[in-house]
Amino acid sequence: MTGFAGPPFDYIRDGAEIYRRSFATIRAEADLDGLPPEVAQVAVRMIHACGMTDLVRDLAWSPQVVTRARAALRAGAPVLCDAEMVASGITRRRLPADNEVVCTLNDPRVPELAERLGTTRSAAALELWRDRLEGSVVAIGNAPTALFRLLELVAEGAGRPAAVLGIPVGFVGAAESKLALTRSGLDHLVVHGRRGGSAITAAAVNAIACERE
Amino acid sequence: MTGFAGPPFDYIRDGAEIYRRSFATIRAEADLDGLPPEVAQVAVRMIHACGMTDLVRDLAWSPQVVTRARAALRAGAPVLCDAEMVASGITRRRLPADNEVVCTLNDPRVPELAERLGTTRSAAALELWRDRLEGSVVAIGNAPTALFRLLELVAEGAGRPAAVLGIPVGFVGAAESKLALTRSGLDHLVVHGRRGGSAITAAAVNAIACERE
Repeated sequence: MTGFAGPPFDYIRDGAEIYRRSFATIRAEADLDGLPPEVAQVAVRMIHACGMTDLVRDLAWSPQVVTRARAALRAGAPVLCDAEMVASGITRRRLPADNEVVCTLNDPRVPELAERLGTTRSAAALELWRDRLEGSVVAIGNAPTALFRLLELVAEGAGRPAAVLGIPVGFVGAAESKLALTRSGLDHLVVHGRRGGSAITAAAVNAIACERE
Repeated sequence: MTGFAGPPFDYIRDGAEIYRRSFATIRAEADLDGLPPEVAQVAVRMIHACGMTDLVRDLAWSPQVVTRARAALRAGAPVLCDAEMVASGITRRRLPADNEVVCTLNDPRVPELAERLGTTRSAAALELWRDRLEGSVVAIGNAPTALFRLLELVAEGAGRPAAVLGIPVGFVGAAESKLALTRSGLDHLVVHGRRGGSAITAAAVNAIACERE
């Protein structure tokens, strides 16, 4: 490690080479054998975003989720995000149809909606998705309450997303909301348990949007 | 789990209660005993952002890092971020002095700088930090090359940050760049190894900016 004791440091400065080596390490270390190829491609990018090859063991998916999410994006579907960090992490040039990336959390109507509905701002923000929900790609990377609320909206008939990437993080409701998503009949990709978050979720969108590594 | 088999779901909708239970779970499960109180407070929020109580075992810090970073923010220091997702995750209302949150990655000058310097865009973007580096709070949550470049700039005399939150993620250079930071003499907070990322990094900034949980 002498090369890292002080500057000048000896490190790889070529972005393409960094990507190549990163993905090669992930493919060498992660146990991707049980995954369909298109899910494995998405998993590699999710692992890249969090540095944890054991993420695979918590992955769950419906058989058509990647295919259907990809088709929806190609057809121009919006990506509906629960958090600005998720929206911020989506690489716009990877999107196939200049798709709209929507996050309504900071809409000025949301605080009052949250108070009226007796729920979190993250969940209340989904009220503003109603006219865009049908056929959309939903990317929930932060709030369990947003994922629960999504399932309620779908059950009420507000519209059916083409696919739901349900990867909220944390200690209260995250595991439960992801379990509920897998039982909802919606096409889904989840990371079971407490792990998740905006970086992993945005990485999943980026991998689905464009197959290029 | 019958309450999660289908809507209506039985889940906590009160944001303050969700926070309270989350932080109580973290404090009950995470081994915070070896941490100074002000580092423990920051660690709790970092764990909250990633869902992993074992993050503690990879934490390293210089004794004064939280105190100095907090003092710098109160004095109006900018927060210099390597990625838009880090900037996006910083809760502006927690900042004590309406501090500027700076991310230069998407500055139009950066692609040419990267080509000229033979490095990544993430590292080249730091050239545009030179006049703000002295006394700043640096938050690197994505790119190891940005952290290496920061250490080079400091060694060249470009300015000395008050504190560096060095939490890049990944498989190429992340562990090495964080090790180099801990040996640099700069006040630092790191998560050793491959783990890290913009959510954990933004959470550290948010915890330092404001002690309220």
